[in-house]
Amino acid sequence: MSARHPVSAEPPKERILRVAARLFARQGYHGTGVTEIGDAAGLQRGALYYYIGSKENLLYQISARHVVRMVEFGETLLNEDTSALEKLLQLSERLMRTIHDDLDEVTVFFREIGALTGERREQVFTLRDQFEEIWLCILQQGVAEGALRQADSLLIKAILGMHNYSYLWLKPDGSLQPEEVARYFCEVLFGTVLTEAGTAEYRRLTQGDDTR
Amino acid sequence: MSARHPVSAEPPKERILRVAARLFARQGYHGTGVTEIGDAAGLQRGALYYYIGSKENLLYQISARHVVRMVEFGETLLNEDTSALEKLLQLSERLMRTIHDDLDEVTVFFREIGALTGERREQVFTLRDQFEEIWLCILQQGVAEGALRQADSLLIKAILGMHNYSYLWLKPDGSLQPEEVARYFCEVLFGTVLTEAGTAEYRRLTQGDDTR
Repeated sequence: MSARHPVSAEPPKERILRVAARLFARQGYHGTGVTEIGDAAGLQRGALYYYIGSKENLLYQISARHVVRMVEFGETLLNEDTSALEKLLQLSERLMRTIHDDLDEVTVFFREIGALTGERREQVFTLRDQFEEIWLCILQQGVAEGALRQADSLLIKAILGMHNYSYLWLKPDGSLQPEEVARYFCEVLFGTVLTEAGTAEYRRLTQGDDTR
Repeated sequence: MSARHPVSAEPPKERILRVAARLFARQGYHGTGVTEIGDAAGLQRGALYYYIGSKENLLYQISARHVVRMVEFGETLLNEDTSALEKLLQLSERLMRTIHDDLDEVTVFFREIGALTGERREQVFTLRDQFEEIWLCILQQGVAEGALRQADSLLIKAILGMHNYSYLWLKPDGSLQPEEVARYFCEVLFGTVLTEAGTAEYRRLTQGDDTR
């Protein structure tokens, strides 16, 4: 770690967030003690509390940070004068880049936000909803532009599932760049999987047959 | 719980697996003690160990059970004399049904298999690979039949991501049946998202433009 982040260059709070995200991602929020975080960050309990307040506040900051940034990116995107498809491609690439670059934080977000309580919990869930809302706005723009057939919450779950599940398999040091993965997912989403013959068969299988 | 499973009707081992899956799903594997599991199952420590051996063995059994069943289902499917698309629809429906019916176990599988060690870890990861292999075989059949354009591991990640991510949002008591969700995902996969105009624009956006 010191090779990547010389102690002198990384502010203590950043260091705490980074080592805590790694510990939470590897052994769970409930399975990680405050003393352990302090040891890993090279800080006494008092200094640790000075910087982060409480273990739950640490979880909140780790969970919220990348979502705040994604929401900011998405809101800027919404205001741009480009087509919905262009926006979808950009949001897809940015999401995969975030999962790739902040894998520990994203892992903690998906695994541990259930452990948040009160206002912090509400805030993180609100951020998550805002992010889904951004996807919905872009999909609705796509429908309005005549490019997309549908814009609903299940489509957002399908899209987010494709992307977000990658926190379980994406290798930060893998040969595949996150933007390449994003492009691939957009290809799947935007319909290049079936051939014409496949499309005909699929229609036959799923239409006018309610008994399956 | 007693309303759903009268104590007299549910074998102790089933009861232990069920309450442990719930505890692990809610508070994490590392955050759950053996005593707590015993209390929730109404068993002394000695009896608990008699039935499950160790906490890690419990995690192994919870994690492996539904994957074993999915693999069995998939292998039967592979031997059936039906088209790849028919098999994909069936596997999709079965996977969503499993996530819906065994939500605690599936949650533990996705969140906690990293905590397994040694042979148990190897076995669960092998099962997971076998399940992906089944998808690959069906996709390859689809390519051989001329119905699918591609069959590769990234497509499997996309498909599994769509489905598996639902452990985070699917409501077991929701109005949406898991088979309906599966159908929707197959619709997304098999390319009904873009209109013709959208497809033309998408091609324009992504082809012959390497600067994005």
